[in-house]
Parts: sequence; C-alpha cells; structure tokens
Amino acid sequence: MHTKKAAPRKAVAVDAAIKSSNLKRLNRIEGQVRGIARMVEEERYCADIIIQIASAQEALRGVSRELMRNHLRHCATHSPEAVQGELLDIIYKHLR
Amino acid sequence: MHTKKAAPRKAVAVDAAIKSSNLKRLNRIEGQVRGIARMVEEERYCADIIIQIASAQEALRGVSRELMRNHLRHCATHSPEAVQGELLDIIYKHLR
Amino acid sequence: MHTKKAAPRKAVAVDAAIKSSNLKRLNRIEGQVRGIARMVEEERYCADIIIQIASAQEALRGVSRELMRNHLRHCATHSPEAVQGELLDIIYKHLR
Amino acid sequence: MHTKKAAPRKAVAVDAAIKSSNLKRLNRIEGQVRGIARMVEEERYCADIIIQIASAQEALRGVSRELMRNHLRHCATHSPEAVQGELLDIIYKHLR
Repeated sequence: MHTKKAAPRKAVAVDAAIKSSNLKRLNRIEGQVRGIARMVEEERYCADIIIQIASAQEALRGVSRELMRNHLRHCATHSPEAVQGELLDIIYKHLR
Repeated sequence: MHTKKAAPRKAVAVDAAIKSSNLKRLNRIEGQVRGIARMVEEERYCADIIIQIASAQEALRGVSRELMRNHLRHCATHSPEAVQGELLDIIYKHLR
Repeated sequence: MHTKKAAPRKAVAVDAAIKSSNLKRLNRIEGQVRGIARMVEEERYCADIIIQIASAQEALRGVSRELMRNHLRHCATHSPEAVQGELLDIIYKHLR
Repeated sequence: MHTKKAAPRKAVAVDAAIKSSNLKRLNRIEGQVRGIARMVEEERYCADIIIQIASAQEALRGVSRELMRNHLRHCATHSPEAVQGELLDIIYKHLR
C-alpha cells in the first residue's frame, strides 16, 4: 500500500449508503480472496481458480465504480479543471 | 464463489515454488483488501482508494499469471485441442 | 455501428485542439489496422500481430480519453446527476 | 508500428478459414475507425463515440483471439517451454 502516513486526503462528502455498501462488498471480496487461497492450497484446477480471480477483480471494479459515483456526485461538481484532470488520469491509468 | 461442492477438478501438477509464491501473494492481497476497507471506513479521498484497488487488481492478475504459467508447463503440453479451447475461453472471457 | 440515423446527439462544445488531434490519431489508427491486415495476409507470427493489435487498442483508448477530457470540461460541469450516471455507465461498461 | 524491416517471423501454419475470417474482420474494423472519425468530425456526443470505440476495441480483441486460437492449434503443440513463456508474456502484457 503506497499510502502516505501523514494527513491523508479525505473525501469532500461520502454518501452513507455508498459507504456501507462498499464496506459490505469489501468484506465479501476479502472472503473471496481467502477462498482463492484455499483453492490454490488444494491444488484446484487452474481454470477454476482463474474464474474466481476474475470474479474478485470484477467485484473490486464494482467498489471503484461506487467510489467514482460518490466522487462525481460530491466532488467533481465544485471541482476546477485540475481535479477533473486527476479524475481522468485515475480512470485511464488505473481502470481495467 | 460458483465452485461446485462435489469432486472439484484438480490441477495435473503444481510446482511447489509457484504454489508457495501464490499463497504468499494472496495473503498480501487479503491484507490489501482489508486496507482498502479501512480507507473506505476513514472516508479517504476517492482517487487514493481507487489507486489501491487497481494495485490489488494487478496483484490478482499476477496470481492468475502464475497459475497460467503452471498450467502451460504441466497441462497444455499433453493437452488435446479441447484443453486449448478451454484455455482460450479463460483467456478471453476472464482475463483483464 | 449502432448509430441511429435521425437526429444524432451532438456534443455541447468541442475544443478545436482536441478535435483535430483526435482526427489525426484516428487517421493513424486506420493505417495501423491496414498494417495489421497486411500482417495477417503475409501470415506473420501471431505474437507480432497481437502486439500491433494491442497498440491499436491503446491508441483507441487514447482517443476515448481525449473525448472524455472534452466531455468533463464542457458537459459534465453543467450536468445534472442523470448525465453523470451515464458517464459512469460508459466508463465502467465500455472502458478497458 | 514497431515491426522490424528484415526477415519478419512467420506463423508455423495458418488455417485458411481463420485467415480469411480475420481479414474480413479487419476490413470491417477499418470501416468502423473511419466511422468514428466521421463522428468526431461531426462533433457527435462523446458517449456515443466512446461506445463505438469500445466496439472497435472488442472487434480487435476478436481478431487477437482467432490468432491465438491458430497459434495454440499449430505452434504451441510442438512448442518447447520457450514459446510458452512468450505466449504468457503476450497474454499478460498485451491482452486487455
């Protein structure tokens, strides 16, 4: 995790519903990752594991989608072009 | 997890080094996912969370890469075309 | 192309520089696609063709990035939540 | 296009059906790219263009899938591990 220790940036505002749904999703993803580890441990068939990995990746994508939804709702509207440029960078560098 | 309960398919063979490295990676990814949940909990800035999500997704991709390496080494070589068709399906449906 | 014939939606505003750079990019991509067809015609090695395909895909991603930049600059700012929802849908359904 | 001028590598063997279907696909993709350029020229709505770009990207992915199918059929079978390593590199570096 490349997060800086001091004074992490905070969201302008966070919808309670989005936050709680994201925490539930992440909890489920953590379980998925543990399940994948178990499959590796049991030497399960490669294709079956890769499908579970793809599913965890999609689930992470879902969390990032909700974060972006919250961002567009609360931040992007009062944001100058600089913030939009950053948003664009995130989208195109990190979104797959 | 859409894994069938009875008689899960097993890998033909698994390299001990690949297995152990994958288990280590998955352990780290589980920690990453917990870290992301903490960031959501603390209402950290959306862009910073999305970067961590992207990093977890890349790490999962790394595990899938190692599984595929093991698969190509041990399975695909004695594989009839059927296995190759399946390999192709995995690659194009599930790999992002 | 699933474009509707009558009354296509127009951009609110288009930066001349973005438009001209995108037209140049697309012109180059068209040439890339022709080059890929030539490689297929000449039965070139699969890996070498796939690398060129990846490069054309990245170039298309570049065009979509510029379109999104223009969109965020001119449209998203005076946009109600509906438009942002659409933006989000595009990003997460279509962006790879 | 980063293709080397001299002595390009050739495919071991190419299925006539795959080759002809890929040439047809690429011809269609070239038309798609021209259509996208026309949409940019006419200042069409960003979302509508991005959907067409995504469709061209998917179509390119289809060509790469067929190339990989041909590769797995003809090359990977008599392939030492070297070719498999290369296959893996293509898959994980270039496939999105």
